[in-house]
Amino acid sequence: MSTDAYVEVLSREDCLDLLASEPVGWLAYCERGEPRIVPVNFAVDTDQVLIRTGYGSKLAAAAHSQVMTFAVGSTDLARRTGWSVTVSGQARVIEDDLEVGVGPARLSPWAPGQKELVIAVPISEVSGRRVRRQVA
Amino acid sequence: MSTDAYVEVLSREDCLDLLASEPVGWLAYCERGEPRIVPVNFAVDTDQVLIRTGYGSKLAAAAHSQVMTFAVGSTDLARRTGWSVTVSGQARVIEDDLEVGVGPARLSPWAPGQKELVIAVPISEVSGRRVRRQVA
Repeated sequence: MSTDAYVEVLSREDCLDLLASEPVGWLAYCERGEPRIVPVNFAVDTDQVLIRTGYGSKLAAAAHSQVMTFAVGSTDLARRTGWSVTVSGQARVIEDDLEVGVGPARLSPWAPGQKELVIAVPISEVSGRRVRRQVA
Repeated sequence: MSTDAYVEVLSREDCLDLLASEPVGWLAYCERGEPRIVPVNFAVDTDQVLIRTGYGSKLAAAAHSQVMTFAVGSTDLARRTGWSVTVSGQARVIEDDLEVGVGPARLSPWAPGQKELVIAVPISEVSGRRVRRQVA
């Protein structure tokens, strides 16, 4: 089935363009050896992904300088195609809004709640791929 | 901004309905303390999420009975709303297709490649939430 499918490995430039095209991504981290994933709004600031957050386990992971992985993707159900981009790096917490290089509107989360801090995931590793299909 | 937003915590039943509505999700696991996320096609078989795979690091994680987390979600950019469902459990590898409780078409990955094994993530923990907005 679907033998016409192939995978295209995306360039870093394509990955960064696609990353910036989505409003919501998934932030993953490990907590006592178990994976956690949370959907988050984000903004890309040059060489890092910024996520506004409140207190909780993802902030704790970033405060401990853990490696976090951030992913975005999109699918086309009719064509059975899609793309994904994944970014990994040692996270840190930005406590001073003056250090945040993007405007507040771009970092505004959809979900309500106190979110006074920003997690920065440096784009140390980035990879992306796209499943395509040949048109007959 | 967006002070009309609120978060609805989804019931287990709603979570399972939404889970089954999506063709692609994200599988997360920890490898040497660092989180990995990969987009995957999947099927829900009663109380577990099934993912067809080939050899690689996610298979290794499942073969070591690690806890894996699986997530699906959907967003509405115009309304700034969305939902997410997350499932976690101790994974295992199913080597015998006769043990797989869903038909091959439902487990057929979009991406090409040899994928002769199936990872099962039991729906031990499930949680979901939806960001909604009040209509004025």
